[in-house]
Amino acid sequence: MIIDCHGHYTTAPPALQEFRNAQLARLADPSLPVPQLADISDDALHASVEDNQLRILRERGGDLMVFSPKASGMEHHVPDPATARAWAAASNDLVARVVGLFPESFAGACQLPQTPGGNLSDAVAELRRCVDTLGFVGCNLNPDPSGGFWNSKPLTDDFWFPLYEAMVELDVPAMIHVSASCNENFHALGAHYLNADTTAFMQLVEGDLFARFPTLRFVIPHGGGAVPYHWGRYRGLAERMGRPSPTELLRNVFFDSCVYHQQGIDLLTRVVPTDNVLFASEMLGAVRGADPDTGIAWDDTKQYVDAAGLTGAQLHKIYEANARRVYPRLDARLKAAGR
Amino acid sequence: MIIDCHGHYTTAPPALQEFRNAQLARLADPSLPVPQLADISDDALHASVEDNQLRILRERGGDLMVFSPKASGMEHHVPDPATARAWAAASNDLVARVVGLFPESFAGACQLPQTPGGNLSDAVAELRRCVDTLGFVGCNLNPDPSGGFWNSKPLTDDFWFPLYEAMVELDVPAMIHVSASCNENFHALGAHYLNADTTAFMQLVEGDLFARFPTLRFVIPHGGGAVPYHWGRYRGLAERMGRPSPTELLRNVFFDSCVYHQQGIDLLTRVVPTDNVLFASEMLGAVRGADPDTGIAWDDTKQYVDAAGLTGAQLHKIYEANARRVYPRLDARLKAAGR
Repeated sequence: MIIDCHGHYTTAPPALQEFRNAQLARLADPSLPVPQLADISDDALHASVEDNQLRILRERGGDLMVFSPKASGMEHHVPDPATARAWAAASNDLVARVVGLFPESFAGACQLPQTPGGNLSDAVAELRRCVDTLGFVGCNLNPDPSGGFWNSKPLTDDFWFPLYEAMVELDVPAMIHVSASCNENFHALGAHYLNADTTAFMQLVEGDLFARFPTLRFVIPHGGGAVPYHWGRYRGLAERMGRPSPTELLRNVFFDSCVYHQQGIDLLTRVVPTDNVLFASEMLGAVRGADPDTGIAWDDTKQYVDAAGLTGAQLHKIYEANARRVYPRLDARLKAAGR
Repeated sequence: MIIDCHGHYTTAPPALQEFRNAQLARLADPSLPVPQLADISDDALHASVEDNQLRILRERGGDLMVFSPKASGMEHHVPDPATARAWAAASNDLVARVVGLFPESFAGACQLPQTPGGNLSDAVAELRRCVDTLGFVGCNLNPDPSGGFWNSKPLTDDFWFPLYEAMVELDVPAMIHVSASCNENFHALGAHYLNADTTAFMQLVEGDLFARFPTLRFVIPHGGGAVPYHWGRYRGLAERMGRPSPTELLRNVFFDSCVYHQQGIDLLTRVVPTDNVLFASEMLGAVRGADPDTGIAWDDTKQYVDAAGLTGAQLHKIYEANARRVYPRLDARLKAAGR
């Protein structure tokens, strides 16, 4: 079975964005009414994924996708907590309905109602709701709610511990995933996302987070940003700093396979132990279209993984076993369905 | 001949840091006298590199190093322009003296007196002084003088054009190199440096800088940050954005080989055309010591390049010809010496 651990609902019906627009309009003009998400029919939800994520997942031989709200749309930089709560709830509820329509093909991961400088109580509450009530199996954690100004605390700071305590209790991992960039220096998809992946890993090298939370698990997306390419740098830096080898982090840290060319996947799978690579494509996400030289869709990462010279046992880990281990609630759901 | 295009004077005599400390003390207490750099003898300069950069360069078979002040010590985040001017001048003068002592082994690249939010007139003046008077062959350009807060304009903005005009006139390239991080989220060596490399490249993808400056040349250090590892992502993003292929940037953009393990160098040299890779080690820089598994020094990048399966013609480009092309003033100096 093939599990894609990184999919976003980038094709939601327009009513979702209209709701967001109304939220932002009300922040600009508080005399406007509190907006409500318009009714969206099951047919509209069905159509929104049937010819998109679901079709492509099936065409490529995939079985199930961990599905979360659109990453760039989380927009944690908007500072109003009530707006963030309502936006996360609406986005997560819609993901939950898609999962409910196609329970064999999707599992939910939630957007958290983070805000710049805000505390994490709303995020913890939404995580609990999404896991306990909606059956979600993971969450997306934004290490920079400001959207490119990086004025939060590092991920190893106790600021984040209330969320980690809930994640550990619920036994769900977080994918470390920033959202839109408000900093003109950082293109969201071409710089901010990759920088965040790199930054998060180095914060973990510097800290002792997993001594405090030995079962906490993070998935670093986009192939780990710059990290596998610079694995020697991280090993050498850790040694120079008197820190444990970065290999020690691999009990708790995993990289997805959203790297969009063969040489990149080759490097990822040769440098990072097989137990720490999770198959993912982020299809219909940052990079769409196909390589004109090969005809292969950029985000068809399965083609690269298949061609990376891995053994059957390695492929089984990357495609399925690692995801079941990192997302135990997904594993439990699959087992309950006899899969 | 083997040219290492990325070396910093990380081993300067203590008087240089004492001068810096006195500068910072005077910023805190303006009643203090304007500090002067203490006399440093030629013997002290000789000793500072003889058993360090020079010994290691020779041991590894290298011939010449492009040498610039310590990158993390540039500290462009200190906002006072007079302090920045004096600091850059002192640092560059010391590099020039080392070059004068060992003209066969070093060529100078300068630190620019940038400040957060400051204009570039001081940087242009110092560049001209270093090239015209000190014989330097390049400069280091910091795209984020704030030190991790990224509140400058992108490199494609006309804010930077006065410097580019001088670079073009003088026919010197810039290495895009940030300095110390003042943002607790970014470890300087493990996140900020690599993020800056990635960020700079994506800014160039988004803009049309080289249509305006067709002979401007940038070296992106540390193997280009995350860029070669994500080359498919950049190709796909550029296509989606209606931008030229990132390959088009390679007339003006070059990557150094400061990637500290074999697999990383293998990827770099397979993904990036040979004409665009410049040998570099940043020895005695970010990452010191040796891989305990192999005994190879992390920054002994020549060992990785030699083992990357390249032809003699390719190695000649990476070790020498590309550097002569990107740094024409270095080439002229070498030719004048019959090399």
